[in-house]
Amino acid sequence: MRLSELSERGGVATATIKYYLREGLLPAGRRVSATQAEYGEEHLRRLRLIRALTQVGRVPVATARDVLAAIDDESDQFERLGAAVYALPHGPDPDEADPLTERASRCVEELVAELGWHDECASPPHRMLVSSVAALMRLGYPCGPRELLPYGRAAAVLAETDVALVAESFEPGMTRIEAAVALTVLYEPVLLSLRRLAHTEVSRRRFASEGPPSTGSGAVPAEGAGRGGG
Amino acid sequence: MRLSELSERGGVATATIKYYLREGLLPAGRRVSATQAEYGEEHLRRLRLIRALTQVGRVPVATARDVLAAIDDESDQFERLGAAVYALPHGPDPDEADPLTERASRCVEELVAELGWHDECASPPHRMLVSSVAALMRLGYPCGPRELLPYGRAAAVLAETDVALVAESFEPGMTRIEAAVALTVLYEPVLLSLRRLAHTEVSRRRFASEGPPSTGSGAVPAEGAGRGGG
Repeated sequence: MRLSELSERGGVATATIKYYLREGLLPAGRRVSATQAEYGEEHLRRLRLIRALTQVGRVPVATARDVLAAIDDESDQFERLGAAVYALPHGPDPDEADPLTERASRCVEELVAELGWHDECASPPHRMLVSSVAALMRLGYPCGPRELLPYGRAAAVLAETDVALVAESFEPGMTRIEAAVALTVLYEPVLLSLRRLAHTEVSRRRFASEGPPSTGSGAVPAEGAGRGGG
Repeated sequence: MRLSELSERGGVATATIKYYLREGLLPAGRRVSATQAEYGEEHLRRLRLIRALTQVGRVPVATARDVLAAIDDESDQFERLGAAVYALPHGPDPDEADPLTERASRCVEELVAELGWHDECASPPHRMLVSSVAALMRLGYPCGPRELLPYGRAAAVLAETDVALVAESFEPGMTRIEAAVALTVLYEPVLLSLRRLAHTEVSRRRFASEGPPSTGSGAVPAEGAGRGGG
């Protein structure tokens, strides 16, 4: 297909596609004349992945290029998966000068051992976890290995679901690494929004059982009140 | 305590504290002279919450002010909880002109009904979920109610854990709403980093069972290989 068709089918302006081509996020098309190139389905899929990374995952363009480079790398598949996921943004690094970082590190090591995971302390998600735990400690929130264990167990269940979906979602032209990166980035907002919805649901039930709601406020429609167990 | 002590104990520069005071994120101290004010433990706790929201949760200062205003509001507790959590950033709104938004909305409604939740379509987490599902549909990833149900169930388990932690983590001067907002924001990076760590773990096991690793690479130390079931 020509650039105009790629633009239309991908829902991305031609100027933006040219920018991605210049920045090396999208491989060049097959040149058919001095001014025109031909693009294939693999370009369309790659274009959609770029949009998903940058728009849904809010990954900066330079970072997206590193992630895509890791996907395209021909070396060992497991290492590529690590490289691609590790290239994703992962928040601020722990502050090594902060004494809480040391305490948070020990807590995370204990948690990971309890879960039976083989974790490398230098990995970006490990460092993200340490700085998040240090922040909780600073505020005095419960975040010892005992409190974090249910989150670790839930994460293990989610990861099994994710990996099974990756295995299911192979399509012609999609590599497993591409699927893994997309699932990591694209299912994060799904998970966070579902957790927030569940918060509302669980709080509603707790508040309802603790005392009568303010009568006549109309904020919680009565017709919905009995469906919780259905 | 004086401003200097608040700065030292909170780990925040006095200029930054003055900025929070001017912007209304932090309530004014009790004036003791023309140039000095006295601050209490509640100021210290509020200061730490502001830092957690803006640094760990990467919430913009103007948004943090709305969240804190919702926390301080004296009206009905359940509504305040909604207002405070809803004031948090929740990503791009769904594109109403996109036909996939309609499909994604139906999918989310079916999922929520299946989970037995009482959800309002206008809520920010609902809209965030619809736009995330539409993005998955656009890329051709599996995201029907059947595929999303395990995520919804995991979110329900997490929300129960969260709400139990909120109940446990009451401290003098901390309101339930404050605890709920902090837990929503502060446990999100914990959860996402644990999921990414679990991805590495699950992929490692799957890849290991599919074929021998490239010998002598040294990337996966052999001494850790047997601990998975422990």
